[in-house]
Amino acid sequence: MENQNNTRFLKACRGEPVDIKPVWFMRQAGRYMKAYRDLKEKHTFLEMCHTPELATEVTLQPIKALEVDAAIIFADILLPLEPMGTGLEFTKGDGPVIPRPVRSRKDIENLKPVNSEEQLGFVGDAIRMVRSEMNGKVPLIGFAGAPFTLCSYMIEGGKSRDFTITKVMMYETPDLWKQLMDKVCTVLIDYLKMQVKAGAQALQIFDSWVGCLGPSDYEEFILPYSKRVIQALQETGVPVINFSTGTSTMLPLVKQAGGDVMSFDWRINLDDAWNQVGFDQPIQGNLDPSILFAPIPVIRKRVEDVLKRARNRPGHIFNLGHGILQHTPVDHVKAVIDMVHEYRYE
Amino acid sequence: MENQNNTRFLKACRGEPVDIKPVWFMRQAGRYMKAYRDLKEKHTFLEMCHTPELATEVTLQPIKALEVDAAIIFADILLPLEPMGTGLEFTKGDGPVIPRPVRSRKDIENLKPVNSEEQLGFVGDAIRMVRSEMNGKVPLIGFAGAPFTLCSYMIEGGKSRDFTITKVMMYETPDLWKQLMDKVCTVLIDYLKMQVKAGAQALQIFDSWVGCLGPSDYEEFILPYSKRVIQALQETGVPVINFSTGTSTMLPLVKQAGGDVMSFDWRINLDDAWNQVGFDQPIQGNLDPSILFAPIPVIRKRVEDVLKRARNRPGHIFNLGHGILQHTPVDHVKAVIDMVHEYRYE
Repeated sequence: MENQNNTRFLKACRGEPVDIKPVWFMRQAGRYMKAYRDLKEKHTFLEMCHTPELATEVTLQPIKALEVDAAIIFADILLPLEPMGTGLEFTKGDGPVIPRPVRSRKDIENLKPVNSEEQLGFVGDAIRMVRSEMNGKVPLIGFAGAPFTLCSYMIEGGKSRDFTITKVMMYETPDLWKQLMDKVCTVLIDYLKMQVKAGAQALQIFDSWVGCLGPSDYEEFILPYSKRVIQALQETGVPVINFSTGTSTMLPLVKQAGGDVMSFDWRINLDDAWNQVGFDQPIQGNLDPSILFAPIPVIRKRVEDVLKRARNRPGHIFNLGHGILQHTPVDHVKAVIDMVHEYRYE
Repeated sequence: MENQNNTRFLKACRGEPVDIKPVWFMRQAGRYMKAYRDLKEKHTFLEMCHTPELATEVTLQPIKALEVDAAIIFADILLPLEPMGTGLEFTKGDGPVIPRPVRSRKDIENLKPVNSEEQLGFVGDAIRMVRSEMNGKVPLIGFAGAPFTLCSYMIEGGKSRDFTITKVMMYETPDLWKQLMDKVCTVLIDYLKMQVKAGAQALQIFDSWVGCLGPSDYEEFILPYSKRVIQALQETGVPVINFSTGTSTMLPLVKQAGGDVMSFDWRINLDDAWNQVGFDQPIQGNLDPSILFAPIPVIRKRVEDVLKRARNRPGHIFNLGHGILQHTPVDHVKAVIDMVHEYRYE
């Protein structure tokens, strides 16, 4: 199978010039699409993740309907928690629930080692099927949650506003925090390497909630672990995208964690963010997902604002600052792709 | 009644040197205190807000138990919504619910004008009672939500993660947004001036959720309204504290909205934030509320970090970056106050 190193997405990941700016969307396969909702009527979210044929079908839905420049495998950032033994459930409208949260030394010791090939092989199978079905149309991205985001779900038992239980473990028992993060890093590295072996041509690490921390906490409790995972994955040769939200005040630290591409949210102007990490650093972002609900002329103004701030510099992948929201009009997603592809720098 | 202009809190608000650094906490009257929980067993949250005797009792609980340098009237940021006609309820553990959300032109037109003296007079009564009971011990702060935060609750109907309905109103129907914000500004100015007339010696405007927006949205849709409210309130002569969270990437814009004091969250180092708005700007902040759950030595390290970053510059009020969290140990709150008061710069 060809490596597609000359596609505009992978070229942009390496900071090389491209003919047309690449664009894809986090959560581009999901509830805003009718084809997805139809399938969701017959299967639970986890069934779709666990069944390679279904995950493949969902992954391909936006590839068929939209002119995106990359596919991302349909999965959940938290799938590695299942074989670790915490449980993982999705309750309607309430997001992930972890039935057996990890809060004590005993809880951490009880976490099981994971053999990703065996226990998370369904993701690898889906990656193989998608690669085969796409037949080189666009590159395929694999992904998982970053160490902090995974641990925060494990500790809190689900989503959280203040992440207090997580922070208390950091502050009160830094040795437990280290022990838990070490275990999660090991699983993540194994799991994501398995994805590359199956055919993922890039990886994205989602640190969706790390923005609840201040810079010194990030530096002490997060950076070393994210860095370890990213470095281990870079050994595979595929580009790694370091995604986070709410980290605009500590971008130089996030850059230290590494990654071939840094992905920003919309809380900072793209040029300010890029300037902070250096224009030789490939980046991704950063339209506010809510903008997609606006009328087309408003969307156009905002898309062009991002494109103008990026200027004609190589190494920019157009994306949102976070995932596509549930009721986003598909036509508006299509329109953004066209705007990006048709935009010409003077 | 004396104006207490020489208290360390009010001096710091004006950027004047103080003997000992002032400290108070957002939500210093609340669920983490046993005296509060005991009262809460007998009354609902809104009953306590509506009954001046109860609001007074709760306001004074931390003044009796802790050596804080300011009191803040017990109330809710959303109280002005009740006389506007949207309704306001607090469901157990779920935060505020607005039974009649404001989403259409008709909804906005139906909002009622408010006579704060008559309809929110219970807050004024509580302020008068607290001033009288405290008898000059520490100054009293009045407050309300900022225009954006109030409108976001009105539009979403409660708390939100993405604020999409709010943002869509901004982008799709900017004239409706303006109409709603205008109405909310009028009510807020009337309500907060009433608080000053009743005896509030400083005011804090809580823009708790404005950090969901990027800089250009803030500039276009928020700044003019926050500025209008703050300027109108400054005419009363009391200092106005401009509080927001998640705005570390747009502090110069937040400064344009005005305020005698700017209050930062913990997502940025205090000295970086202060430097961005100029060291002649009095500031407040910025310990992470979660730190209060840590062991005392960890708390001490973090408190001293904030104090060192502030240096010996006049115009710093020590506070958290957001309100005290529910299960915070009271002893830890006390310890922080002592640490701040006992700290000596070289």
